[in-house]
Amino acid sequence: MHDPNCIFCKIVAGEIPCRKAHEDAEAMAFHDIRPLAPVHLLVIPKRHIATLYDATPADEGILGRLLVLAPVLAKAQGAGDGFRVIMNTGRVGRQEVQHIHLHVIGGPDTLGPMLPRGEH
Amino acid sequence: MHDPNCIFCKIVAGEIPCRKAHEDAEAMAFHDIRPLAPVHLLVIPKRHIATLYDATPADEGILGRLLVLAPVLAKAQGAGDGFRVIMNTGRVGRQEVQHIHLHVIGGPDTLGPMLPRGEH
Repeated sequence: MHDPNCIFCKIVAGEIPCRKAHEDAEAMAFHDIRPLAPVHLLVIPKRHIATLYDATPADEGILGRLLVLAPVLAKAQGAGDGFRVIMNTGRVGRQEVQHIHLHVIGGPDTLGPMLPRGEH
Repeated sequence: MHDPNCIFCKIVAGEIPCRKAHEDAEAMAFHDIRPLAPVHLLVIPKRHIATLYDATPADEGILGRLLVLAPVLAKAQGAGDGFRVIMNTGRVGRQEVQHIHLHVIGGPDTLGPMLPRGEH
């Protein structure tokens, strides 16, 4: 449920500060400390699930909740005209924190392409 | 449930061909016709939901199922060492087909950054 070595579990526990955008019984959202766009939230399950590889059918409910929450939070942050959800998994996907998180990225300007050319 | 003007609903109905990677009662996955990486699947709910803005709590189950399915399909396509899930929503997010879909993107090589510099 809680991994004492996980930075996001520490944020959930209030042991590391964050700029919080949302909190409920199961989920939390906060601003990325290195934003890639005017709106860049991280939306996480409070319960520790390391990666999508570790997710089981028992996690479908919370993962679906995070996706339904994403547009609500994007709108609340001023990204009501569109946004992108990105989830990185594993080495190839460049997952940096081993606790599932949705990047919710948006702003007033249209985002660039999904992958930069020549970098994949 | 089915939008007669939606290209993905037509794929679900078998009216438009696709290179199928998965099908069950609720979900379908097929190869993107313009792949951005060696593995580039589109994973969709069979039921028509236009965008994440249109998703309701009743959709949490199927959306969570698609996320739990993503790593299984990625591995089956040879992207077992990591992948990226991308969902575009709205104008800013560059959503092209108005039927919810997860891009599952991976391959042997590490993906580039989440957003190209200078394009957001």
